[in-house]
Amino acid sequence: MPIEITILGCGSATPVPDRNPSSQFVRINQTGILIDCGEGSQMQMTKFNVKHSKIDVILISHLHGDHYFGLAGLISTMHLMSRKRKLILAGPHELWRLLEDHFLVSQTKLSFEIDFKPIHSPKEGLLFENEDCSINTFPLHHRIPCQGFVVKEKQGGFHLIPEMLKLYKLPITKLKELKMGKDIQLENGDIIPNSRVAIPPPIPHSYAYCSDTAPFEELVTYIQNVNLIYHEATFDESLAERAHQTFHSTAKQAATHAKDANAGKLIIGHFSSRYRETELLLNEACSVFPNTIIAKDGLSILSE
Amino acid sequence: MPIEITILGCGSATPVPDRNPSSQFVRINQTGILIDCGEGSQMQMTKFNVKHSKIDVILISHLHGDHYFGLAGLISTMHLMSRKRKLILAGPHELWRLLEDHFLVSQTKLSFEIDFKPIHSPKEGLLFENEDCSINTFPLHHRIPCQGFVVKEKQGGFHLIPEMLKLYKLPITKLKELKMGKDIQLENGDIIPNSRVAIPPPIPHSYAYCSDTAPFEELVTYIQNVNLIYHEATFDESLAERAHQTFHSTAKQAATHAKDANAGKLIIGHFSSRYRETELLLNEACSVFPNTIIAKDGLSILSE
Repeated sequence: MPIEITILGCGSATPVPDRNPSSQFVRINQTGILIDCGEGSQMQMTKFNVKHSKIDVILISHLHGDHYFGLAGLISTMHLMSRKRKLILAGPHELWRLLEDHFLVSQTKLSFEIDFKPIHSPKEGLLFENEDCSINTFPLHHRIPCQGFVVKEKQGGFHLIPEMLKLYKLPITKLKELKMGKDIQLENGDIIPNSRVAIPPPIPHSYAYCSDTAPFEELVTYIQNVNLIYHEATFDESLAERAHQTFHSTAKQAATHAKDANAGKLIIGHFSSRYRETELLLNEACSVFPNTIIAKDGLSILSE
Repeated sequence: MPIEITILGCGSATPVPDRNPSSQFVRINQTGILIDCGEGSQMQMTKFNVKHSKIDVILISHLHGDHYFGLAGLISTMHLMSRKRKLILAGPHELWRLLEDHFLVSQTKLSFEIDFKPIHSPKEGLLFENEDCSINTFPLHHRIPCQGFVVKEKQGGFHLIPEMLKLYKLPITKLKELKMGKDIQLENGDIIPNSRVAIPPPIPHSYAYCSDTAPFEELVTYIQNVNLIYHEATFDESLAERAHQTFHSTAKQAATHAKDANAGKLIIGHFSSRYRETELLLNEACSVFPNTIIAKDGLSILSE
């Protein structure tokens, strides 16, 4: 089923009115994932009706302030609201030291457990999985160690058709095999094809978050065929040299990654504060990858 | 001359819409002072037209996140805007370690110098002075080490009356004495009373910031006779027990401090998120100290 992304901040390092630093909320079935948490993210959550109680996992791509300066505040608020449920937190390994120091000096003993999964960049592989999804990480190419994430829906079981189960008088012991898509053999030797009593599950959706990065060839191998990509597009093409110097991407480069990865849809964000209007960036991206959406704080987008 | 306070945040630990965590900008002559810097303070500055380039001094009262989680972000923005001017920063001594660690992991070498003045609480005395003002600190009574601040305008010189200086043909060598308020003797022996050629300067204004604190007797000795006080008033009187347990004040207790200190005017703030309306708190304070103003994000107040 579709994955829903709510943009909480699509600005870059310098916050501007109506554009907070990076943060977004990803809903995949019953699992809530916050990716990056720039300053003010918790206020954006209140503004856009994203409840922090719905967050199961927080992923931090790298330790530039515009991607994590809101994290300690959000965790403090969860504590003040007496959260009990464990929180999964994955991010650069130094992040834990920074957080611990905050809570040490404020003499705070959190009301809930944080299961911290340190990332030693460059890292590629599985970070977390539950019944709804898996989260993989992959290295990006930025000034400091930086990681991207791919969230992938778990393949669901085949949907059984109750009327058909009844018609064939199928025993409960066979249901597991049917849900796995197998044909089954009855005691009398008859074979019931799976397709008569079950419907294949929908193809799992997937979402890739490409945080701050210069373009590089291998990137598309990590995000191949995803339904939806969020990719930074800090600059327009006329500032390609500046993008290169600062290890960022232009809108066109972001779109090229989406095209080469055969993605379904692209969201571009992380705009430099120099762009009050973003039409230029959208046009550049669309010229390469037409199914591009421009991020905007508060916007919700579904994978397709 | 009056000191101007602009409230950037008057909420307490949990941010609510329209009420950010603690921060305020104090303008005293040509000196700009930011007191406390909760998360989102730099966005509030943009919203309320307080330019970060006007900040000369930042004071952090204590290391609860709602009083400093916006500091690293603000300093980062100053750096990104290529600030060159030295910044004075005073706060709990551990603050420097926290900041340094942020800039270490982000590999940031700031574009400007920070002159950090560590406060080892409890501390009483002068923190900083320049030609406009002096800043003193004093200990408060909170769960963790916490300091208040008194900003006092420097006593200006006597204002000389140009017409009278001309009339008496007073030599330049005497002007310094006149500005100090002294009578002067001419070469012919005549004595010119200061009051004939000069006007006494206005009485210096003063402002006290009382951050998170339980009420305690000695407090009023630190803030005696100030023109204006900002005092936390986290709770109303019905929650006095909760205030006591958490080392906070009620609105009435804040007003009692203002009254006992013989202050000119009181601003109350740092309201618990449970108060959507603050009339109850204002009424309680006014019953003890009528010249009370309720803080509101974006409000500017002059000392009187």
